[in-house]
Amino acid sequence: MLNKNIQTFIGCEAEYEEAKIVLFGAPFDGTTSFRPGTRFGPSAIRSESFGLETYSPYQNKDLMDLSVFDSGDLELCFGNAVRVLNEIQKRTNKILEDGKLPFMIGGEHLVTLGAVRAVAEKHPDLHIIQFDAHTDLREDYLGETLSHASVIRRCHDILGDGRIFQFGIRSGDRSEFEWSAEGHVFTNKFNFEGLQNIVNEIGDKPVYLTVDLDVLDPSVFPGTGTPEAGGVTFIQLLDAILTVCNGLNIAGCDINELSPAYDPSGISTATACKVIRELLLAL
Amino acid sequence: MLNKNIQTFIGCEAEYEEAKIVLFGAPFDGTTSFRPGTRFGPSAIRSESFGLETYSPYQNKDLMDLSVFDSGDLELCFGNAVRVLNEIQKRTNKILEDGKLPFMIGGEHLVTLGAVRAVAEKHPDLHIIQFDAHTDLREDYLGETLSHASVIRRCHDILGDGRIFQFGIRSGDRSEFEWSAEGHVFTNKFNFEGLQNIVNEIGDKPVYLTVDLDVLDPSVFPGTGTPEAGGVTFIQLLDAILTVCNGLNIAGCDINELSPAYDPSGISTATACKVIRELLLAL
Amino acid sequence: MLNKNIQTFIGCEAEYEEAKIVLFGAPFDGTTSFRPGTRFGPSAIRSESFGLETYSPYQNKDLMDLSVFDSGDLELCFGNAVRVLNEIQKRTNKILEDGKLPFMIGGEHLVTLGAVRAVAEKHPDLHIIQFDAHTDLREDYLGETLSHASVIRRCHDILGDGRIFQFGIRSGDRSEFEWSAEGHVFTNKFNFEGLQNIVNEIGDKPVYLTVDLDVLDPSVFPGTGTPEAGGVTFIQLLDAILTVCNGLNIAGCDINELSPAYDPSGISTATACKVIRELLLAL
Amino acid sequence: MLNKNIQTFIGCEAEYEEAKIVLFGAPFDGTTSFRPGTRFGPSAIRSESFGLETYSPYQNKDLMDLSVFDSGDLELCFGNAVRVLNEIQKRTNKILEDGKLPFMIGGEHLVTLGAVRAVAEKHPDLHIIQFDAHTDLREDYLGETLSHASVIRRCHDILGDGRIFQFGIRSGDRSEFEWSAEGHVFTNKFNFEGLQNIVNEIGDKPVYLTVDLDVLDPSVFPGTGTPEAGGVTFIQLLDAILTVCNGLNIAGCDINELSPAYDPSGISTATACKVIRELLLAL
Amino acid sequence: MLNKNIQTFIGCEAEYEEAKIVLFGAPFDGTTSFRPGTRFGPSAIRSESFGLETYSPYQNKDLMDLSVFDSGDLELCFGNAVRVLNEIQKRTNKILEDGKLPFMIGGEHLVTLGAVRAVAEKHPDLHIIQFDAHTDLREDYLGETLSHASVIRRCHDILGDGRIFQFGIRSGDRSEFEWSAEGHVFTNKFNFEGLQNIVNEIGDKPVYLTVDLDVLDPSVFPGTGTPEAGGVTFIQLLDAILTVCNGLNIAGCDINELSPAYDPSGISTATACKVIRELLLAL
Amino acid sequence: MLNKNIQTFIGCEAEYEEAKIVLFGAPFDGTTSFRPGTRFGPSAIRSESFGLETYSPYQNKDLMDLSVFDSGDLELCFGNAVRVLNEIQKRTNKILEDGKLPFMIGGEHLVTLGAVRAVAEKHPDLHIIQFDAHTDLREDYLGETLSHASVIRRCHDILGDGRIFQFGIRSGDRSEFEWSAEGHVFTNKFNFEGLQNIVNEIGDKPVYLTVDLDVLDPSVFPGTGTPEAGGVTFIQLLDAILTVCNGLNIAGCDINELSPAYDPSGISTATACKVIRELLLAL
Repeated sequence: MLNKNIQTFIGCEAEYEEAKIVLFGAPFDGTTSFRPGTRFGPSAIRSESFGLETYSPYQNKDLMDLSVFDSGDLELCFGNAVRVLNEIQKRTNKILEDGKLPFMIGGEHLVTLGAVRAVAEKHPDLHIIQFDAHTDLREDYLGETLSHASVIRRCHDILGDGRIFQFGIRSGDRSEFEWSAEGHVFTNKFNFEGLQNIVNEIGDKPVYLTVDLDVLDPSVFPGTGTPEAGGVTFIQLLDAILTVCNGLNIAGCDINELSPAYDPSGISTATACKVIRELLLAL
Repeated sequence: MLNKNIQTFIGCEAEYEEAKIVLFGAPFDGTTSFRPGTRFGPSAIRSESFGLETYSPYQNKDLMDLSVFDSGDLELCFGNAVRVLNEIQKRTNKILEDGKLPFMIGGEHLVTLGAVRAVAEKHPDLHIIQFDAHTDLREDYLGETLSHASVIRRCHDILGDGRIFQFGIRSGDRSEFEWSAEGHVFTNKFNFEGLQNIVNEIGDKPVYLTVDLDVLDPSVFPGTGTPEAGGVTFIQLLDAILTVCNGLNIAGCDINELSPAYDPSGISTATACKVIRELLLAL
Repeated sequence: MLNKNIQTFIGCEAEYEEAKIVLFGAPFDGTTSFRPGTRFGPSAIRSESFGLETYSPYQNKDLMDLSVFDSGDLELCFGNAVRVLNEIQKRTNKILEDGKLPFMIGGEHLVTLGAVRAVAEKHPDLHIIQFDAHTDLREDYLGETLSHASVIRRCHDILGDGRIFQFGIRSGDRSEFEWSAEGHVFTNKFNFEGLQNIVNEIGDKPVYLTVDLDVLDPSVFPGTGTPEAGGVTFIQLLDAILTVCNGLNIAGCDINELSPAYDPSGISTATACKVIRELLLAL
Repeated sequence: MLNKNIQTFIGCEAEYEEAKIVLFGAPFDGTTSFRPGTRFGPSAIRSESFGLETYSPYQNKDLMDLSVFDSGDLELCFGNAVRVLNEIQKRTNKILEDGKLPFMIGGEHLVTLGAVRAVAEKHPDLHIIQFDAHTDLREDYLGETLSHASVIRRCHDILGDGRIFQFGIRSGDRSEFEWSAEGHVFTNKFNFEGLQNIVNEIGDKPVYLTVDLDVLDPSVFPGTGTPEAGGVTFIQLLDAILTVCNGLNIAGCDINELSPAYDPSGISTATACKVIRELLLAL
Repeated sequence: MLNKNIQTFIGCEAEYEEAKIVLFGAPFDGTTSFRPGTRFGPSAIRSESFGLETYSPYQNKDLMDLSVFDSGDLELCFGNAVRVLNEIQKRTNKILEDGKLPFMIGGEHLVTLGAVRAVAEKHPDLHIIQFDAHTDLREDYLGETLSHASVIRRCHDILGDGRIFQFGIRSGDRSEFEWSAEGHVFTNKFNFEGLQNIVNEIGDKPVYLTVDLDVLDPSVFPGTGTPEAGGVTFIQLLDAILTVCNGLNIAGCDINELSPAYDPSGISTATACKVIRELLLAL
Repeated sequence: MLNKNIQTFIGCEAEYEEAKIVLFGAPFDGTTSFRPGTRFGPSAIRSESFGLETYSPYQNKDLMDLSVFDSGDLELCFGNAVRVLNEIQKRTNKILEDGKLPFMIGGEHLVTLGAVRAVAEKHPDLHIIQFDAHTDLREDYLGETLSHASVIRRCHDILGDGRIFQFGIRSGDRSEFEWSAEGHVFTNKFNFEGLQNIVNEIGDKPVYLTVDLDVLDPSVFPGTGTPEAGGVTFIQLLDAILTVCNGLNIAGCDINELSPAYDPSGISTATACKVIRELLLAL
């Protein structure tokens, strides 16, 4: 008998029951105001992952030694952000209930809100580490409060002051930086300076890690909706991820904002795959 | 003193007061389920129109002899189709109140609903002529009733049976064709056969003409979200437009579904510009 | 429990046991001399098929009413055509043994040889209908006898004179046309003229249908390695497929030579999907 | 000893002395007002010609039976159209002096003027057959009289009334059509109707044939600076070329306006190569 | 009443009378010898600027606090560099006469000559700071003295020895470097070393700053006609701009050589926008 | 008399007899498992080299002062790696016999094996310096021992332990790193650390230098089949090349793995040209 055609991220072929980590895609870009296309991120990552080795010479570990289950993409409805976030929250809840770590692949950054809702429900003392070029702290965008530009502000609505730590930030409007500076959020501009201190401070509290891949320099990661010159290198991001994963208790994580249409050479998708591999191995 | 940088569709430089026709763009693709990007249609059309002559050897007329005002694009909020349709309806109302003909450039096909609401308010006996590859008659799409796949069904909610005439249709699910065949809508598959008869039948009643450019064959018009092989040629579309405009009383119209990202050679945008020129000259 | 991520051509979700037709991909382009890339054809077809409806207004049939199983892609080794053809033959054999119809998606045209070997073994009186821009009748190409340019010549080695019927041919070297004219193969240049006669002639003998999509005009199907101006339209190809499937006893078939890298607008992949849908419905 | 790397159009490998036809490229696009890039036409044609067979099933002839010399591209200076035209005229003169037929590959259409100057010098009773989407009859373009939009007007300056015959024309400003209609030039709109009559009329007088490839429909030939919907098919162009070459005494010819940057699938370059092959075989 | 469609660089919406800085585009690439397309630079910059925030976290300043007027693009005639430079000079003169700072967006680098002529007329002791990958010091290029490769040599014709300072240079022919080394021009290879010293040296004399964006590394700025590996980073360029603007008396400036056709991901255009924002804020 | 169209890498116009270095292209990618296209590398390099100066400001040397002969590309047969390697070996032998240095432009990395066979025959004590992202040390790939992923392992079959030195390596499977660590090959991960020591160690023994351009970071060199984030910069590679060429006795060299289809901006091809220029000048 012939088998069905199962597609996973490379090396993530565990059965659900045995898996420690569960991947899922959230292919949504419905509030993207500038250049859409992150909806195609998860499937591009899954199919291009086969150009990657499962072994990391950086960590001397191999995906073949882990137990990761790839549950595919959610089927999301464009034009209704409320319902989309509910679907994401439900999937995350299910994974948490089964005692596994949720690892979401976006999609635009708004999808983080759905996952954070679920993780914060389970871990009321949740903290967030955000690697990003953009503050995402707007109260609303053209009147919409559920927007990629407001996602971290919405997370702050849930978690409150002093729980969110941003690194690599180099874009936002003046009011976002001012609001952050009032003490609501810790914003480190341009790079990862001070990350180790924050990690030490957080200690063993549960942490959600959200990686907006546009934290990378556009030269390294052109394939994103709003590229911002002056970003970090792959090696700097890798070091930051290792710092976080080695020092903290990760309760959930995501990688988002790959837009394959702006990546004709494929280097952004390849880099996203490599970041995912390293993050999986570090968890 | 230097002048501000005003951008219009070529030859549409009338002052508002004197204009007979008013263009506006509705750069929205928020419910597009497959390949987004029609939000970039109106601006691409405006800037590429400068590769076009204002004179038509088909009609022996020139845009320079008309009075058309280009009011630019609406600023629309992604993620909230209800509000987007309201904005479109308001702009259309304004143009109608001032005694001018509204000519909208989409965006995805859903934008038609906003304009039709306004035109139907003014002309309760409105009819619709639709040139399209797709029926767009779904009751809902993944639960959403405001969707590019439901737009003509929503127009039918307003106008009722026997008022909507589709041509060029070659895609839809079975239930859409069955529902149409119950007599709600006139659906002519594949081409423009019977168009002259319909035109004669409608007579002098007010008509809204909506041209989904994917009615064209993908060879002629590749730059669209859901290309459907087996479409009409440019000359067939031109003839159909002349048939409609010469025989009917047009109360409003639109052109939609150009997605420049899928048009690397630019032929789709150039063709869209030419269709707009011919339609403007025929009105 | 969450499900694994199963990917099929749209509407081909039958279980293997119940299936009448079995799809498989042969992602090989290892002998392509000019522009490679057909290896990416099967996966592009599978993922883009979700832009297609399952219902055909041409045939008034729906894929949801069929039982088709999609067994995914073979894992093929580049650089060794002998072994690749063996893998294809084995997969085809298995499907035939289980009493199902093999439907292969290439890949370059050479893959047809693997399937034909298996089908001819089961049906020694096999005939071939070939829709193609190119004769593919070279004895060898730069010394290699297993080449995309020689595939039909190799099929002739198996089947002998009078069994192979080519339509749409508009490219080849002089000697190929001369060899064909000696009576080895029936070659109809440029179009499908005479196809109905051939169908009548073959009667109820078993037939393998191989559709090289470059039989289509490059305007309709640009995404192929060696585009040849002057081809047929989608509607002409559709009619030819219906003529063949309604009149003949199809024992196996394939669709090949989609090269997504040369299809930036996606119209070729969309057309390939539509051809596959219509062929599946016609079988 | 190893050989130098000689590049020619496929099958054009004759020595200069024995050649009947001499190819040369004029890679100039310096007056192109809209989308530049035809400078890359000749080299793209030369390298992609190796995807083409030397044999034509349309004419049952083979390039291997001809004697064509490919003299490569002129080195032209951007920013000085006067000097560029002189270089082209000199090269054409040289070929004519040596008793061979000049066959130029553009570049933008202005290059035709350089060749026509040389051919008209040798044949004062020269006529021109022009296949084109555009009239190219402007007196000047933004003040420049040497422009791609004025090239045929400049040829008229040399040849006078009644010597120039345009086919396929579907774009120009009103004054160009009016000027033509005064009897200066014969303009056949949209297609090749009446071509055979013109050929009969011209009889055995010397003719320069200039083929602006944008006469082809953009679906067939997207790769050009100013695509104009509503053009002819490849087969129609081929028939027109055969009509001209079989009926007339060709003293020089050119093919122009391929812009490879707008041809991501390569079908335009492939079609240009095929047109050149057929034209060479027909001469 | 509806408004006309006014397009400006983001945040540059001042009325002409109140403006301190006046932008204009010079969309010319008529002498570009290798890969054309910078003619599309200004309009791409204007439309993509809406992906940028008006606020700079680098300088903690906002475009909304400035008074900048965007006067749109000059309409320039291809094929006549003399006339093009006159048009640029006239526009620059007008801006200077009105007591405002001219800020030009190219186009190819030759456009700088038009602006420098005007600024040097007003400020005979003008100095030039040039950030560039290429020397641009050729006496002529294929005989043309008005060429992108000669533009700084032509500026030297006006200003004489010791007034021009180049940084980031990593390409040129040997004779250009030798001529510079004779003391005519100060050439700093590869980077911005010594810039602060030069700034100190120039003191309060009027300075024209010309930024050829190809000074950036191709990884950061691929979208240019002649990319040169080994360039500076965005942060290095930003620091250099701040050094110049904080230390010197800028009398005019330009940004040039963005070629959007070679920037499929859009990162070059986004970076150009960001450089313009930072330069506007620093002036 | 007109000349034939000879195409060389810029500045490589010596006659064969006088040449010290002989270039040739090996346009083969037949075992590439992931993204093919390096077959187009050599011709892209040759034609784009004309955007490069012949003078290097890094080394203050000029190609015009060297004697390099460009013998064009081998005509290689896809689908038969054994024969391809024989052709390469024969060409390399010929160049060596004539007392010249072979300089090969790939193609995929497997082509190195053909050249190394020839050079090792002449110099049995040959050493290899490899700059690469990938180990290429697999015993076989899907059963094939002649594969781009096995090429250095095959070279080790010829040369034995202690003769091969890899730098920049950041990808491979675990077993490759382990096999290397057993002492068969010297593998330096991530960068060029220790290169000077290795150069000193090797001393005056003959060395083959193979540069897989994917050793460069994907931001600098996106146009390759398997981009690996975390690579070296152009300047680091240039320094490494100078270190090797100044310190060692180079008996042959190659540059490989440029895949122009993944290089839409052209920066990879431009960088490859610059690396070749610098390597030619350093030899």
